[in-house]
Amino acid sequence: MKELSIQASNHLYKVHIGSGLRHSIGSLIKGSYPQILIITDSEVAPLYLEDVKQSFSEGRVDTAVIPAGEQSKCMHQYEQLLTACIENGLDRNSLVVALGGGVVGDLAGFVAATYMRGIDYIQVPTTILAHDSSVGGKVAINHEQGKNMIGCFYSPTQVLYDIETLRTLPFYEIRSGYAEIVKHGCLDNPGLFKDVISRKLTSDIQEEVLIDHLLQGIAIKSAIVEQDEKEKGVRKYLNLGHTLGHAIESEAGYGRLTHGEAVAIGLLFAMYVSREKLGADMPITELYDWLEQHGYPLDALKSLNSSHLIARMKKDKKSSAGIVNMVLLQKLGEPTMMEFQDQELNDLLNHFQEEVMS
Amino acid sequence: MKELSIQASNHLYKVHIGSGLRHSIGSLIKGSYPQILIITDSEVAPLYLEDVKQSFSEGRVDTAVIPAGEQSKCMHQYEQLLTACIENGLDRNSLVVALGGGVVGDLAGFVAATYMRGIDYIQVPTTILAHDSSVGGKVAINHEQGKNMIGCFYSPTQVLYDIETLRTLPFYEIRSGYAEIVKHGCLDNPGLFKDVISRKLTSDIQEEVLIDHLLQGIAIKSAIVEQDEKEKGVRKYLNLGHTLGHAIESEAGYGRLTHGEAVAIGLLFAMYVSREKLGADMPITELYDWLEQHGYPLDALKSLNSSHLIARMKKDKKSSAGIVNMVLLQKLGEPTMMEFQDQELNDLLNHFQEEVMS
Repeated sequence: MKELSIQASNHLYKVHIGSGLRHSIGSLIKGSYPQILIITDSEVAPLYLEDVKQSFSEGRVDTAVIPAGEQSKCMHQYEQLLTACIENGLDRNSLVVALGGGVVGDLAGFVAATYMRGIDYIQVPTTILAHDSSVGGKVAINHEQGKNMIGCFYSPTQVLYDIETLRTLPFYEIRSGYAEIVKHGCLDNPGLFKDVISRKLTSDIQEEVLIDHLLQGIAIKSAIVEQDEKEKGVRKYLNLGHTLGHAIESEAGYGRLTHGEAVAIGLLFAMYVSREKLGADMPITELYDWLEQHGYPLDALKSLNSSHLIARMKKDKKSSAGIVNMVLLQKLGEPTMMEFQDQELNDLLNHFQEEVMS
Repeated sequence: MKELSIQASNHLYKVHIGSGLRHSIGSLIKGSYPQILIITDSEVAPLYLEDVKQSFSEGRVDTAVIPAGEQSKCMHQYEQLLTACIENGLDRNSLVVALGGGVVGDLAGFVAATYMRGIDYIQVPTTILAHDSSVGGKVAINHEQGKNMIGCFYSPTQVLYDIETLRTLPFYEIRSGYAEIVKHGCLDNPGLFKDVISRKLTSDIQEEVLIDHLLQGIAIKSAIVEQDEKEKGVRKYLNLGHTLGHAIESEAGYGRLTHGEAVAIGLLFAMYVSREKLGADMPITELYDWLEQHGYPLDALKSLNSSHLIARMKKDKKSSAGIVNMVLLQKLGEPTMMEFQDQELNDLLNHFQEEVMS
């Protein structure tokens, strides 16, 4: 088992990564909780819920299962889970366990953050993508008019990452998760970036390689988050690839592409803009080829309307007064921010489609 | 204008109290906000909304008016206000102004706390009761099954208290607000307690007296909150009178009694229990007479079922594993906590009704 510590504004918490951890969650958590609610989704429940439940020898353990998928990150499910907390008798000393991917983590985290003004929760991620969302304390639900519009900053008390649960992931989930690992490499570790895009990913990636990639990804993210938990400064860099990524995701309709697939296209676009505007030397072709080889949906952009995408980007939380703020790269490992007006962004997006994506 | 500073965990904020402040809110706020949303209710809007709106010479100012009353502190209004934030184009640099009493402050504060993971908000209280709720950063909405069950700790960036807005309060609101001032006196300032209960309150309390009482109340609350923002310890004392108070409020049905009226009865009960259990010398008769003289609904308890009230107390956020934690007084100005089981609490409640309330 590997360990990593993260300093949040109010407490220090640990990330444990290992094989089979789900069987010993009950003994790995620090603190004792008389009442525990495990929140998971309909895909994860039949696979791992019983294992996690069995791992607790003390305390009363209840469970709540939400439908799998991004549409569960909504006001309705949020309210239902709060009702479940009350009906199961959770009090201020209770624990929420978020067992699942980013949707479960974000939603269950927001429930824990706001139930009785905040109770403890732990993240038990079951996707590669959740190496990103499970650390850093961003929790949220979506509003019809925008992703993650409702939420807060509320860090877990622990993250327990069982690598075995990644073995059952469909390949598109591996693709989705690796987009964020590639992003983390671009931000602060060109070696990680190069290592990943030199590999052919398969469903049975070697355990040590996977743990290594996840640890490096989490280390990069946590170093940034420790500097700037509330996203007043450097944390914004973590949105590399997300300005266009979020816009693609919501414009295509949630569930049509995975988050990471959309971010991968956004990452290519950020590299393209970095080259055009900053003259940065960017491995665009190498990344494009690797994405194509692994089946990332590179043609998704074609079917989407540029001006609709730009309208979405302007509504992004990172945008201010209608101006789009994009994370660019001066070179691999050196992010920066740049503001864009509509027209310029529109031109860049059109040229990107012509020059890179076709 | 009087000023008082409060140290929250993440920032220092000021409370300004004065006459006519609503006309200069725009110039009194520190920081510049390109986009402002004033949230108020249907009773306050016709009286003061235009004044506050006019006070802003810069920035785009939008408004949202909720129906007056506790029933607005609900999930539905919360969601509607978040939609209003999006539709009015609020971004991370925008400001929410909570203009109203505790309902508006709690609800608008929770909206600000969770919109885009938290934007700035200021409290502009228009009731005496809100001298309590507008400081300390507790924001929340109610769940059908419990008051303030959903919320977080999120302090305003400023509190601007215009004494003139208290002039239009109906007398039951003055009664309601003064219950919390009396509570603050009991907790940490016997002089304030004695001063208040030696007076005959009227709708036209002298301005200096009112400012003095409010300032003392806020000073007591803020000193406690500065020590323990997240209610792990001493902040619990602020719940003096609230264990039974909340139970009465919800058992009678919100809106039947005001919050302060219910707390006043809870305060009497806390004094009674303090005398019975701790042998404390408590001015029960003096407080009872003063409450009766001012029309507090002392007979409300008669019509309520004791076991229902106790079931409500056990569901209170301060309760843990079904044991009720009550704040008692060793003497005026010296609070302490004590745990109670059902049966004992039931006996105490029945004796209280027989000995004190009839």
